[in-house]
Amino acid sequence: MNIEGNERFIRGWEKLKEIDGEAGEKVIQSLKNIAPDLGRYTIEFAFGDIYSRQGLDLKSREIATVAALSAMGNAEPQLRVHINAALNVGCTPEEIVEIIIHISVYAGFPAALNAASAAKIVFMERGIIANT
Amino acid sequence: MNIEGNERFIRGWEKLKEIDGEAGEKVIQSLKNIAPDLGRYTIEFAFGDIYSRQGLDLKSREIATVAALSAMGNAEPQLRVHINAALNVGCTPEEIVEIIIHISVYAGFPAALNAASAAKIVFMERGIIANT
Amino acid sequence: MNIEGNERFIRGWEKLKEIDGEAGEKVIQSLKNIAPDLGRYTIEFAFGDIYSRQGLDLKSREIATVAALSAMGNAEPQLRVHINAALNVGCTPEEIVEIIIHISVYAGFPAALNAASAAKIVFMERGIIANT
Amino acid sequence: MNIEGNERFIRGWEKLKEIDGEAGEKVIQSLKNIAPDLGRYTIEFAFGDIYSRQGLDLKSREIATVAALSAMGNAEPQLRVHINAALNVGCTPEEIVEIIIHISVYAGFPAALNAASAAKIVFMERGIIANT
Amino acid sequence: MNIEGNERFIRGWEKLKEIDGEAGEKVIQSLKNIAPDLGRYTIEFAFGDIYSRQGLDLKSREIATVAALSAMGNAEPQLRVHINAALNVGCTPEEIVEIIIHISVYAGFPAALNAASAAKIVFMERGIIANT
Amino acid sequence: MNIEGNERFIRGWEKLKEIDGEAGEKVIQSLKNIAPDLGRYTIEFAFGDIYSRQGLDLKSREIATVAALSAMGNAEPQLRVHINAALNVGCTPEEIVEIIIHISVYAGFPAALNAASAAKIVFMERGIIANT
Repeated sequence: MNIEGNERFIRGWEKLKEIDGEAGEKVIQSLKNIAPDLGRYTIEFAFGDIYSRQGLDLKSREIATVAALSAMGNAEPQLRVHINAALNVGCTPEEIVEIIIHISVYAGFPAALNAASAAKIVFMERGIIANT
Repeated sequence: MNIEGNERFIRGWEKLKEIDGEAGEKVIQSLKNIAPDLGRYTIEFAFGDIYSRQGLDLKSREIATVAALSAMGNAEPQLRVHINAALNVGCTPEEIVEIIIHISVYAGFPAALNAASAAKIVFMERGIIANT
Repeated sequence: MNIEGNERFIRGWEKLKEIDGEAGEKVIQSLKNIAPDLGRYTIEFAFGDIYSRQGLDLKSREIATVAALSAMGNAEPQLRVHINAALNVGCTPEEIVEIIIHISVYAGFPAALNAASAAKIVFMERGIIANT
Repeated sequence: MNIEGNERFIRGWEKLKEIDGEAGEKVIQSLKNIAPDLGRYTIEFAFGDIYSRQGLDLKSREIATVAALSAMGNAEPQLRVHINAALNVGCTPEEIVEIIIHISVYAGFPAALNAASAAKIVFMERGIIANT
Repeated sequence: MNIEGNERFIRGWEKLKEIDGEAGEKVIQSLKNIAPDLGRYTIEFAFGDIYSRQGLDLKSREIATVAALSAMGNAEPQLRVHINAALNVGCTPEEIVEIIIHISVYAGFPAALNAASAAKIVFMERGIIANT
Repeated sequence: MNIEGNERFIRGWEKLKEIDGEAGEKVIQSLKNIAPDLGRYTIEFAFGDIYSRQGLDLKSREIATVAALSAMGNAEPQLRVHINAALNVGCTPEEIVEIIIHISVYAGFPAALNAASAAKIVFMERGIIANT
């Protein structure tokens, strides 16, 4: 890896830690013995290129991410990471719940219900709601 | 339809016109001779209930909608309506393009490319970019 | 909530219990501390508005629901609720299996195989097939 | 092709014509110079095997098909063929509209709106609604 | 079942065992008490008809299958069966990882990350990577 | 853009022209006035990073791409580009048709039929089959 690649990687790694925190580092770590380059592209492209762009603030990017993953309905682990990320960059729990309710219009109630289950897990882990 | 239904309908119709403008009215109109009740539910539930909720501002709701429809990749007419809606409620063209580029990370490049084509059509219709 | 909302809610709640039974009540209950309004819309819109409509009998509605959820392939908890619901409103186990086999043509064998796994769980829980 | 293959093919071809009518024959015809075996499997497997099964009547099979294709939202030509097919085997136009409205709950409003557009085209072609 | 059906079944069963090995037999076995005919069609159509065709070698068929299932993102059990199958017919572990990384371009990073998790499970079961 | 970025871009641009030919250049050109950076990422990431990787030959990469896009069923313009690309890097028309027939097993017949329609258009444009 040469210097520029290094710049994208370093910028991406900082951005990943800022947004996803420990959960993001775990994703990269879990790829180490199966597809480390997929981890590198996640850092370089997703975070070093895209999340580092101007023109849309991080909170809006996480609104978009939570909405997209809720609607797609087939990426529960990533949805949990990004519900955490949304909280990390300034979304309130209430706003996240609103995004999920909003998605029922576009992707149907099952997508919204499953996203609500993911949010429930995250909110319990963070002590936002009681673990009942 | 009794009074309360009327209230949801009236609130939804006002919200639909505020957000989607003429395009929204056309959608409802086009349902008249095939499924008018689907138009009524669009007004009552999508706009009277969901878009009228507190807790997430309209601009954020349209960021979520454009992100979800771009990621799903199978609802081009609705994506065009909501790229218009996003502009109507305060998103800049640059922010919409950012949402679409952002979606390449989560739903792949074809989804982003097709959403960019939809945005191009809308931006040309509105004179934001030259019709070339 | 005013009187009419109350009517939709009451009608929906009765319909939900008629169709989904205890499983439906559990879904609403599980939303209590995360997104209670999503539960309310499920009752009011999905059951109070849609399932309460004339023009398509409940058995046909559940055939449509099981087919749609099997084909979408990303809503296993809801598919199990509605395999139960289909049985509750008059589908035979054989008919449900036929819907699932039928779906292999339209959404492929993985979708059908995963729907069959969901049906197997439900049929075992209800004692329709032996728990082996 | 040996005798048994012939039996499946003949049974499937008769079933295809019974259900899909001229539209089904056109699909097979259109595959002639690109993938004739895909046409043959459509006849043998989809119609000779699956649609010829006992245990679920043809009307229920078309309810399942229209629901699945509406929910998937990425198969408009096939949805139109099967809205026709549903009418051919005894669904009323009202029932088809009900299936489509019903699907809004499970796959969202864009899926339902696009299915309604497909139904509108078919209903106009068949003179069920005026061509306006 | 007559003789020809028997031929397709026998050819498919041999092909299934050649490609999927024990995992394929388990899938068929698990369908026994819920939808045995779905198992029969898997053998007859998927393996007896399609995988037995000339014109595309088995390794290329499994590249296509792993790519499709990774991109769809809603068929994890089948993806694991076919990562095994790909290894059985000559794909190297490195090639499978490349297919999964490749899919990030077309279906996004969550699809690729979840496919990588599936590959990790299979590679550990087969001792290709250490179980850590 | 610094030197390394330049290297990825140059490598990607050469790879894009090698694989997609004129069609690829048109995609990038069409993004110029709407989302030029999406075009740049397509070149840098998709072609400069991914298609330039070792470990899977270009023909296998296009088999994977055609399979994934056929299965997803919501990216027809990209599917046509990559049916062309598959031919450009050594797939025979027969192999492409086999991939499409193969996909019927995993994503259903509508996905396969619509991919066959896309292939028909490409094959006619290239004079592989007569334009009838």
